[in-house]
Amino acid sequence: MSVITLAHGGGGSLQNELIRQEIVTRFSSPLLASLPDGAVTPEGLVISSDSFVITPRFFPGGNIGKLAVAGTVNDVLMAGGIPQYLTCSLIIEEGLELDELRKILDSMAEMAAACKVSIVTGDTKVVPRGSGDGLYINTAGVGFKRTGLTLGVERFAPGDKIIVSGSIGEHGLSVLASRFGMDCENLSSDCACLDKVVDVLVGNTDNGSGIKFMRDATRGGVLGITAEIFEKSACGATLYEDKLPVTATAAAVAKLLGIDPGFAACEGRLVAVVSSEYAEKCVKMLAENVADARSAAVIGEVTAQPGSVKMCGAWGTLRKLVVPAGDQLPRIC
Amino acid sequence: MSVITLAHGGGGSLQNELIRQEIVTRFSSPLLASLPDGAVTPEGLVISSDSFVITPRFFPGGNIGKLAVAGTVNDVLMAGGIPQYLTCSLIIEEGLELDELRKILDSMAEMAAACKVSIVTGDTKVVPRGSGDGLYINTAGVGFKRTGLTLGVERFAPGDKIIVSGSIGEHGLSVLASRFGMDCENLSSDCACLDKVVDVLVGNTDNGSGIKFMRDATRGGVLGITAEIFEKSACGATLYEDKLPVTATAAAVAKLLGIDPGFAACEGRLVAVVSSEYAEKCVKMLAENVADARSAAVIGEVTAQPGSVKMCGAWGTLRKLVVPAGDQLPRIC
Repeated sequence: MSVITLAHGGGGSLQNELIRQEIVTRFSSPLLASLPDGAVTPEGLVISSDSFVITPRFFPGGNIGKLAVAGTVNDVLMAGGIPQYLTCSLIIEEGLELDELRKILDSMAEMAAACKVSIVTGDTKVVPRGSGDGLYINTAGVGFKRTGLTLGVERFAPGDKIIVSGSIGEHGLSVLASRFGMDCENLSSDCACLDKVVDVLVGNTDNGSGIKFMRDATRGGVLGITAEIFEKSACGATLYEDKLPVTATAAAVAKLLGIDPGFAACEGRLVAVVSSEYAEKCVKMLAENVADARSAAVIGEVTAQPGSVKMCGAWGTLRKLVVPAGDQLPRIC
Repeated sequence: MSVITLAHGGGGSLQNELIRQEIVTRFSSPLLASLPDGAVTPEGLVISSDSFVITPRFFPGGNIGKLAVAGTVNDVLMAGGIPQYLTCSLIIEEGLELDELRKILDSMAEMAAACKVSIVTGDTKVVPRGSGDGLYINTAGVGFKRTGLTLGVERFAPGDKIIVSGSIGEHGLSVLASRFGMDCENLSSDCACLDKVVDVLVGNTDNGSGIKFMRDATRGGVLGITAEIFEKSACGATLYEDKLPVTATAAAVAKLLGIDPGFAACEGRLVAVVSSEYAEKCVKMLAENVADARSAAVIGEVTAQPGSVKMCGAWGTLRKLVVPAGDQLPRIC
């Protein structure tokens, strides 16, 4: 491997290898070592950064601006932070319609207000025609660590439950469908901020002490990121295929496109590992209190086999889940 | 104006108009209103973000990685912060040579170590061939506000001195020269972190109380950014052309290329407004103590004419300086 390929950006094992071997080794910060989407500093700051290169920029249920706010806010939340400040850096390709930019900025402002973060600084660069693809947005987020939360794979114990906060794969599927010009009623991106979901989880796990891990199921989808979470764990997991919340429309589109919805990206769903005593209550309270989380479900449990993630299929057969090499779909975020 | 043009990214009045009219109005954060390169939060955090799209990626004296660290570190410093944490988000065009990426990451690591910041999190995206230009880097910086510093144009008073921390225009000129394949001995980018410069200024102005404003002279150069600083001020400024520290090589290259070095970008020089009693001492101490600041100079003074920045030429004639519409050179950072 001597050049960068699209798969290096797909959120799978090739990307992990690139980041671990080429980036983390060089920057050698202890905070980087566990490859968090958000770093927690000794002062209790939670810092995250994400660039958004999604195509198309407008998709059912959102656009690149909404996504850029939700994505970074979610990364801060998943690292145990309460997001507070956001930066907004634009790389605009010469020729972008100003009206389109306005709509995207409107969405960013709306989303930032909805999840109570302030966009406090930014940067605007313009690159010549042919050196970009309309618009790329980077957002960095800064938040403050919640007290009471201690997150880490080292806390996993056999019997813990794995929760997903809503129906899965809809972001990736709807983006792909819109690339093919498919107009799917009832299918739109799940793009959303997870602040209310986290509030409910914390509120129903003894002030968060029962939450052991959270991760938003972006590139790689619920199954890809679950495989990744357990890769370095002393425990394993078993997931149950029939427990995965997949809507009828998402299932139909997935079948049509030949995509496993479990590996299709979400942009407003999280996977959480919680102590078993809190699991059912969390799912119930999510379904009752958060509009986006009606389909929240316990999808599996932690086992004693280190690093092994298995999927229990419809006939009770087990198959091994591995971290995909790259995403099924490039540029879905 | 209905589409974005290259000049919207040039750091001049067109960009300011875009940012003020389209971005600041929407995001409506009080911290954004003064268009700082770094925001200072009520908790005393200083946050900054910059995307780097420079071409070519390697230039005399540096590369895009070195620049991406220095640029954001400097923005945090200029806002009165002590930089501590950096994020690193890459947008890589498919096909980038891995060896090239390694060199760039090496430079980032080296520069981060030199100015004592930790790169704590990041993101990697890959876009298809033709949708980027090799590599764009976004860095966001988080620091902590220095005590004793109060920066703001509202503190300007007639008689204050304007300091530049070293010879000017060399970043922009050397990037342009390298685009033309010119091999200029003795001309290389001034790309550097300004941490030591700020330390010396603070150390020689009664713990910083004598510093009224700092800004790194990037897009727009020393003259462009000075015009911008005073645009909204109740004071004005007079600069002296013969005091501008321009090296003989930079002057020769500028003449050859038809570029005013005063408007050519620096990436390791700051313009500071200080109380007059500290000015000469600051310049002397900078020249003696910071390798990059041998040519530090007092280049002008604050006047009572609101918003008016004048340049006193070689024959004592005054001309008005205005904020350029865009940069002379696109993509110099």
